Amino acid sequence: MKEFFKVTDLDDALALRYSFNRMGKETIPVQAATGRVLAEDIVADVNLPDFPRAIMDGFAIRAASTFGASDGNPAYINVPRTVAMGEIPSFSIGPGEAAKISTGGMLPKDADSVVMVEHTDAIDETTIEVYKSVAPGQNMVAVGEDIQKDQTVLSCGQRLRPQETGLLAAFGRQSILVFKQPVIGILSTGDEIVPVDTVPSIGKIRDINSYTLAGQVLQTGGIPLHLGIVKDDYDNLLEMCQKGLDQTDMLLVSGGSSVGVRDYTVEVLSAIPDADLLLHGISISPGKPTILARAGNKAFWGLPGHVVSAMVVFHAVVQPFIDHVSGLESALHRRYACPARLSRSVASSLGRVDYVRVKLVGENDTYTAEPILGKSGLINTMLRADGLVKIDKNTEGLDAGAQVNVLLFMS
Amino acid sequence: MKEFFKVTDLDDALALRYSFNRMGKETIPVQAATGRVLAEDIVADVNLPDFPRAIMDGFAIRAASTFGASDGNPAYINVPRTVAMGEIPSFSIGPGEAAKISTGGMLPKDADSVVMVEHTDAIDETTIEVYKSVAPGQNMVAVGEDIQKDQTVLSCGQRLRPQETGLLAAFGRQSILVFKQPVIGILSTGDEIVPVDTVPSIGKIRDINSYTLAGQVLQTGGIPLHLGIVKDDYDNLLEMCQKGLDQTDMLLVSGGSSVGVRDYTVEVLSAIPDADLLLHGISISPGKPTILARAGNKAFWGLPGHVVSAMVVFHAVVQPFIDHVSGLESALHRRYACPARLSRSVASSLGRVDYVRVKLVGENDTYTAEPILGKSGLINTMLRADGLVKIDKNTEGLDAGAQVNVLLFMS
Repeated sequence: MKEFFKVTDLDDALALRYSFNRMGKETIPVQAATGRVLAEDIVADVNLPDFPRAIMDGFAIRAASTFGASDGNPAYINVPRTVAMGEIPSFSIGPGEAAKISTGGMLPKDADSVVMVEHTDAIDETTIEVYKSVAPGQNMVAVGEDIQKDQTVLSCGQRLRPQETGLLAAFGRQSILVFKQPVIGILSTGDEIVPVDTVPSIGKIRDINSYTLAGQVLQTGGIPLHLGIVKDDYDNLLEMCQKGLDQTDMLLVSGGSSVGVRDYTVEVLSAIPDADLLLHGISISPGKPTILARAGNKAFWGLPGHVVSAMVVFHAVVQPFIDHVSGLESALHRRYACPARLSRSVASSLGRVDYVRVKLVGENDTYTAEPILGKSGLINTMLRADGLVKIDKNTEGLDAGAQVNVLLFMS
Repeated sequence: MKEFFKVTDLDDALALRYSFNRMGKETIPVQAATGRVLAEDIVADVNLPDFPRAIMDGFAIRAASTFGASDGNPAYINVPRTVAMGEIPSFSIGPGEAAKISTGGMLPKDADSVVMVEHTDAIDETTIEVYKSVAPGQNMVAVGEDIQKDQTVLSCGQRLRPQETGLLAAFGRQSILVFKQPVIGILSTGDEIVPVDTVPSIGKIRDINSYTLAGQVLQTGGIPLHLGIVKDDYDNLLEMCQKGLDQTDMLLVSGGSSVGVRDYTVEVLSAIPDADLLLHGISISPGKPTILARAGNKAFWGLPGHVVSAMVVFHAVVQPFIDHVSGLESALHRRYACPARLSRSVASSLGRVDYVRVKLVGENDTYTAEPILGKSGLINTMLRADGLVKIDKNTEGLDAGAQVNVLLFMS
């Protein structure tokens, strides 16, 4: 019987990701930016806005002309002109004067505020009464009030949300530099695994992990590549792994990572040129029998065969590696966990990080996390779960009512 | 000057979504399932597993043969045979007997548990000592223990996560019925708006909303279609809106929905055959001057021109409409909000739902939500924000330290 593997601490395992290089860069149109990771810093080359802009429909005015105005004592203002949308007003605003302006219009010279149309009444064609005063700067945006020129507004390593894409548009960027998305190869091993389109004979099961892992890769911003199923055969596995490493940026091999009769993954690794075994076993549960190796700059994972274990290892360990090679700076990207209270006690072991599947129930600030107990081979536990609670290695179980943070699954 | 519009209550506005039909259905390969909305119920046509399966490497045994075993008093077990992976064992297990088995292997007849290899020592070629007892059912999965045959396991209207895709694979599904993704047309209006590839002259600004809204549509599972920019011109706007409605399942027109000189959106609506104005103004802030009309089964939105207002209206109102027409059953799909404490007081108005942009700081169960105050035309407030806090219409402001729920932006 083989020796048991020495497990690596989770934090030590995670720290290994920094030894891998990030993906290369590519230029994409700004329309495709949302969700991608920026690979350049963006410095504002103009002020936003670069002209004083009305943000309400109303009248561009000197605020001082309205001071003291009220329902009982309105200010009478002369409105001889209108600012046309998208045009530079050729006139200026004197005391007791205003110009009709629409949202988005440019304030004339010497106007420092906009009176909302709702706070005025028309007296005649060129006179209004204003019955509410405005402060300087009110209902308008000054030059550079949104974004100042020469300011670094977006940073390399940041994932772009719709608002960041909008900002790029505001600067007139039509294309940007982003990190390439890593292609993640997915391979299942095991004599008992049959393709999805096959009816499994007794003793065999269909290949589930290729589908769950591919979905997780997609949600992480990677591009999954199905490499198929390999029987428990050293030569086949070696060939497929070499082929997989050639075609991808990272390789996930599920099954065959436990210490058992079928454990070829480590042997295959040893036969791959330039491959180094980085760890064999991580002190997490489920997911302990995980292998990580390096082949050149490519991470090569041996994941547990159980569907739940493989998914948990993906969340806990593989995802941070994909994030890193995808160019994400962890300081610029947080995954928020949802605070909740545990509905019942959960046991865990000192010295090991435990991931407990939970269902979130209740509303809003009174979320309760209900542990879903079940064997790690049961996919139904993942169907019922909304996320995972991580129990630290220095904690020996959690009591009912304990405050926990739920790492939510994406949906 | 035109009459002011009567605003609609947010809940009443949201309820209007149920008057729109859901999208049609299409068949897609199961590889593409993650993220899509299921359009059929899935009933288990087999038990999972459909054979008793080992979930640890070890020895298939009758649990009773191990009862009382301990380090000091191991059970001596005869192991004459091995279960080969993916094969049906032809033998059964008697008392005091076991068969070597690997994870995933099928338990022989009369075995009811698996002793982990870690809890055994080999004495000779066919004898082991077991120094820890197992319970019946331990380290194995019984027939149907994961999923029972004939059970409805997935429901129409559910968004598929990686685990649901994995379950479909387990049932051998190669294709599934899903709702089509709605195509959402995006049009910007305003004489001051210029395309992103144009250098705006003074008084003009680049089209930001088309980019922010397209990103939001993508994140909601829709397919954005950029329809361009229309000047403040009734004929042009009518023509583009009709074209847009022909090509899409929903239309978002930003700008031009305020009561002002440029308000053509409502007039255009009246000219579109079969169009009904459903609301003109929603009691939310920002985002009050929102228009919703129906043209056949298609929702036609007039969104505010300010980038922040348009984004907030999308989150608060448009997204639930897209979710609905995308086939999502709200009972099967929750968007979790992150509980946090407000760092400072925020004012709001009775009778109106306020959305406050917030930044989340701190760690885990001690999240603090810092309000980001700023005019709704300023995109920088959205760059700094992690999400929105919704202040109910019956609440007049929130105090510092109040417990709130943050609707997180996706990233």
